[in-house]
This record gives sequence, structure tokens and C-alpha cells, in this order.
Amino acid sequence: MDLTAATRPLSSAVSAAARLLTARSGLLLRAGKEGLTVGGNDSERAVRLTGEAMVHTDGEVLVPAGPLAETLRMLEDDLVRLVVEGSRLAVRVEGGRYALPLLSRELHPGLPEMPPKVSEVDGAALATALRTVAGTAAKDDALPMFTGVRVQSFSRELRLTASDRYRMAVATLPLLSEGEPIDALVPAGLLAETAKQARGTVGLHGDRTRFGLSWAGVAVTTAVLDAGFLSEKLVESSTVDTTVEVSADALAAAVRRVGVYADDRRVLTLEVGDAHLRLASAKQNTGEAEETLKAEVSGGRTSPSFQARYLLDALQGFAGERVRLDIQPGMRACVIRAVEPGDVALTYYVMPMLPR
Amino acid sequence: MDLTAATRPLSSAVSAAARLLTARSGLLLRAGKEGLTVGGNDSERAVRLTGEAMVHTDGEVLVPAGPLAETLRMLEDDLVRLVVEGSRLAVRVEGGRYALPLLSRELHPGLPEMPPKVSEVDGAALATALRTVAGTAAKDDALPMFTGVRVQSFSRELRLTASDRYRMAVATLPLLSEGEPIDALVPAGLLAETAKQARGTVGLHGDRTRFGLSWAGVAVTTAVLDAGFLSEKLVESSTVDTTVEVSADALAAAVRRVGVYADDRRVLTLEVGDAHLRLASAKQNTGEAEETLKAEVSGGRTSPSFQARYLLDALQGFAGERVRLDIQPGMRACVIRAVEPGDVALTYYVMPMLPR
Repeated sequence: MDLTAATRPLSSAVSAAARLLTARSGLLLRAGKEGLTVGGNDSERAVRLTGEAMVHTDGEVLVPAGPLAETLRMLEDDLVRLVVEGSRLAVRVEGGRYALPLLSRELHPGLPEMPPKVSEVDGAALATALRTVAGTAAKDDALPMFTGVRVQSFSRELRLTASDRYRMAVATLPLLSEGEPIDALVPAGLLAETAKQARGTVGLHGDRTRFGLSWAGVAVTTAVLDAGFLSEKLVESSTVDTTVEVSADALAAAVRRVGVYADDRRVLTLEVGDAHLRLASAKQNTGEAEETLKAEVSGGRTSPSFQARYLLDALQGFAGERVRLDIQPGMRACVIRAVEPGDVALTYYVMPMLPR
Repeated sequence: MDLTAATRPLSSAVSAAARLLTARSGLLLRAGKEGLTVGGNDSERAVRLTGEAMVHTDGEVLVPAGPLAETLRMLEDDLVRLVVEGSRLAVRVEGGRYALPLLSRELHPGLPEMPPKVSEVDGAALATALRTVAGTAAKDDALPMFTGVRVQSFSRELRLTASDRYRMAVATLPLLSEGEPIDALVPAGLLAETAKQARGTVGLHGDRTRFGLSWAGVAVTTAVLDAGFLSEKLVESSTVDTTVEVSADALAAAVRRVGVYADDRRVLTLEVGDAHLRLASAKQNTGEAEETLKAEVSGGRTSPSFQARYLLDALQGFAGERVRLDIQPGMRACVIRAVEPGDVALTYYVMPMLPR
């Protein structure tokens, strides 16, 4: 293999691949008539990126991802040459030579093929939706259902659902093209991380066992989790008796301040008044706090208690918006929605806590 | 105690005190005719800040530092009232009350007095000098000499010296006023952290057992370490036979790139040529690298090896400058100085490593 490439785009592609794969992976570089393809696999996912290069000699090598990414990132020259020299891949610039060992390709499965593309979404909308939804899945749970995001496509809409048993987030966003329906449970952390890198229009890919995202020369595939039946139908929401409209940011700021004084469980009570919400933290050795906030209240005066952290996680998805809290009596979820939802429509269910 | 104060400056003072003290400390607040004084002690240091307040009732209370700082930082109101209500200090704003428990003052030594001021330096110059010098001290060493910064004042100059046995940094900066001489060994981490907060002209305070810095209403005191004899005289520098002048930034960038390919000890060799430096990393399974850099060379061709990390630490103190490396044969220190030193004059000694 022997090629010359522009340093910045090559560095971006290799860095993206190294970031998307786990640190110790090898990176497969293939130079051919279609330019340079960079890719790899780890236990969770497969990544494939294509980029431009002036290829002098075709070839395919496997090298350690980390040192290659690090070297390219630190180079100050505009052009860089990658050339196989004996048992090394040499990265060459004027005045410098950095030589990486070639790894054995015997056990490497090769560059992954992508499952078929079934539809497209806007990358920024997907990243926004996943910031809240993927954050709602459990980091660690015996049931895969609570560590994944259920990705469902309907004719014109993509629906993302996640829950950790104590809260559930559901986001819908428009599909940019119609295609085969998808219904897959995708590892939440991996999905959020991938969406964060995505730019522009993002392709959704899927078959029975794999799910993938693609954009501008980048393709990431993952195995899907054993499907559960994660759905809004699991949450009771027919007994709403109290509705409160309030600014999400003002409520979040108050929760943050009053939360400093909450007990070990960090539980706050939202006392619903005639035209206000009164937040109060449970008394304890650490002091107590209360704060009153203007709100539009209709219906009853059901006053639930919540974990401060869960309320903050929920409200973060509605930054800058006015939200409606649909409150149910007893140990039933509070439903949070934007009063005027945008393209990405988020519904957040938070389970209340027993007050002290 | 009952007072009203502007929220921002009060928040800054309380945050500074909380940051300068360890997290779990109590904060002593004293309201009197001189306004509000905030202070405290932890095992390492004493802190005292003064600020303006409209005092309605004099008084002195001890409260937990963390929650008070956190609450003030998050308040959006311009004015805040601090008032003792029973066993609480209430922080009050329109629509909100945050009440902290009063801590027992029985065992608290009270607000610290400062040792006498002996001279003054520019705060920015002190922070710049300490960034390099304090970073050179060991984080953990059985001998206090290697965990402290020796602070010495002469008639017109402050000298700061630190070493971790493998390298030594010495910085000198001008004193803004003449006074009693100081010679104290001060804990390096604490000193650097304090200097980072300092603004404007900084007072140097000291007596036989304590050292202190003061600026704009803030005073920080610490006990001094048992003095050692940390001095440049400990480092041999009379056998320099090779001198190299080079850009500090270009050398640091090359060390960073070639360092990726260094062995486990991260050792690099600086091969001195006629008008260049050639950096080479020791060969190993992880590959190898070399880079050539223009340099002005005089004297011999002594080519030492160094830990990449130590070279980078050293060069960081000379960012944007051209440096002179005075190289000695054998296992003697390389001396690094700016070719054209500014107000803060830094001398850095790095011990070489055995090449592989």
C-alpha cells in the first residue's frame, strides 16, 4: 500500500473510527480505485469510513488505531504519505517518519458490509432526541429492555423509546424518506455516541439482526439487543387530575437550588397551588429550603414528590420551552410535554417517590 | 446576625473560601461594623475574606461551606439576605428561603490572623512562575523538601525553587517593594492553587512558622514545611559542552509526536547534529519514529536521552519562546533557559536517562 492524502480529512476519518471503536482495536486501511476505506470491528459494533486519497499502490493493512490517530492529529503538514515498508506502515512527512507495526490480519473479519438503508432522518434532530432518550435508559440492568433504545419507524415518523423502570422518554421526529419499517432495540450508549458524531442527513439501516447509521462517508453498524416490548402502553396515564404549565428552565433552576437541601434520597415535593408551584425539600440535618414559582394550574391540587435528579434529567430535554406537567394521584407517572412541541416531540414520564 | 448583601460579590467570596478550603469545612461568617468577614481553617491552611454588606444586626456563625456556596452561586436575585432564625442561617430572596444548620463553634479556633506582610509581587507573574515551578515538585514524597516550593526573597527579587529529584525548576521575579527577607518551604499544591486565585498586587506574608498571600480582601495562610536546603547548588552545571538553541514550541510538538512511539519508559534521544536536532524514539513492538528539527548548535555533539514527559513539562514553561539547552556529558542535568528571558526568568534542570 502506498498513498498520499490531505492530512486534515484523513486525520478526521481515522479519529472518528478510533473514537467509534474501543481503544485497543486494530484499524483496517484499504487503498484501491475507490480511494481509501478505513474501518474496523469491536465486540459491539462495526465502523467503515471512506475518504479521498491519491493511491500509488493498492493494498490493505491492519494497524493499531490509537497511535495512528494520535500521530495524524498532531501533524502540521498539509499532505501525508502512508506507505508499507517491510513490517511497518510508515507515516511520512517532510523531516519526519512515524512507523507503525502491521498487525496480523489472519483473524480479522475484514471490512463490514452495511445492512440495507430503509430511511433517513436529520442528524441534528436525531442527536437532540437521543440526548434525552438514550440518557433515560439504565447504564446497567439485567434486562436488555432497560439498557436499549427502541427504534421504530412508521410511515412518516421515527419513534425512540427508552426507560430505566423509574422514568420513560419517548421522542418522535419526522422521517425524510419513506421505506421499510424498522423495529429494533439498540444499545443506548452506543447509539447516543454514534448520533453525536453524525452530520447532515443520516441514513437508517437495518435487517433482522443489525442496526446501522450512515452519513457523509461514515457507516456504523451494531448488533441489536433481544427485543422487549418497551412501549408507552406500559405506563398508566389515564387518571390525570392536575395540570401545571410552567417554564422548564425556571422549574429546573428552582429544583437545582432547593435540591441542595433535599434528604439523602434527594426527594423534593411539588406543592400545587392556585397559580403557583411551591417546591420544598424534606427536612434533615442539612437544613431545608422552599421556593415559590408562578404557574398555570388547572384541575386538582395533586402534589407529588420526585427525585431531584430525575426531574432535572426530564427538564433538560425541554430547555427554553414551556412545559405541561400532567399529574396523576398515587404512585402513577407524571407526564411532561412541551406546550408547543417542535419537530422533535418529546414525552417524558417520571415516577413519583413516596414523600417522607 | 442579619445582613443584606449584593449576591454576586458575596457569592464570589464564599465560593473562593469554599474552593480554598477542603470541601467539608465549616465557614465562619462575621458581620460587624467592618462589613462581612468570611473565613475558615482546614488541616492545611487558613482563609479569610472581607466583603461589603449592609449589616442590620452584628453576629458570628459557623455554617457548612459547600451548600452555602452552591446556593449563592445559583441565585438569580441581585440582593440576598442572610439572617439567623433559631438554629438556622436563612438565605432569603423573593419567593425563596434556603436554611442552613448552624454548626457548633465550640472547637473552632476562630478567624485566623495573618502573619506580617514583608513584600509584594505581581499576581499574574507569580501565577505564571508557579505553574511551572510548583508542577515540578513531587505530589508525594517522604522528604518534605521534594513536595514544597522554596520561597526566598532577596532585596529586589523573589526566587521560587522546586524539585522532585529528577528535575528542578527555578524562577525569579521582581519584588514590587522591599522588606524583610523570607525563606520558607511552602506546600507546592496549595501554593499553586492559591496563586491561581490571586488578582492584582499580591502581598507576601511570613513569620517563623507560617507563610501567607493576600490580595483584594482575600488572605490565605499556611504552615510551612520543615525547611530543607533545596537549591541550584545541588545540581552540577559546570561541565556544559554542547549548546542548542531551538523554538520551545517546535521542540515540544516534535517530542509529542515522536513520544507516541517511545518505549514503556517513554524515553527519547536528542541527537545533536551540525545545524539540527534529530529526535528518535527507542525501537519496540509499537513501532518507531524520528523527526529532524532546525537548531543552532555550538560546542560538542553530546546527545542525551530524556523522558518525553519531563521534556514536555519543562518546555511548557517556555511556550512561545526560543530556548537554549545547555547539555552536559554523562548523567548530568540539561539546563534549559529562555534565550531572551522576560520578567519571570525560569531555569529548568532535567536529568537525562540511560538510552536503551
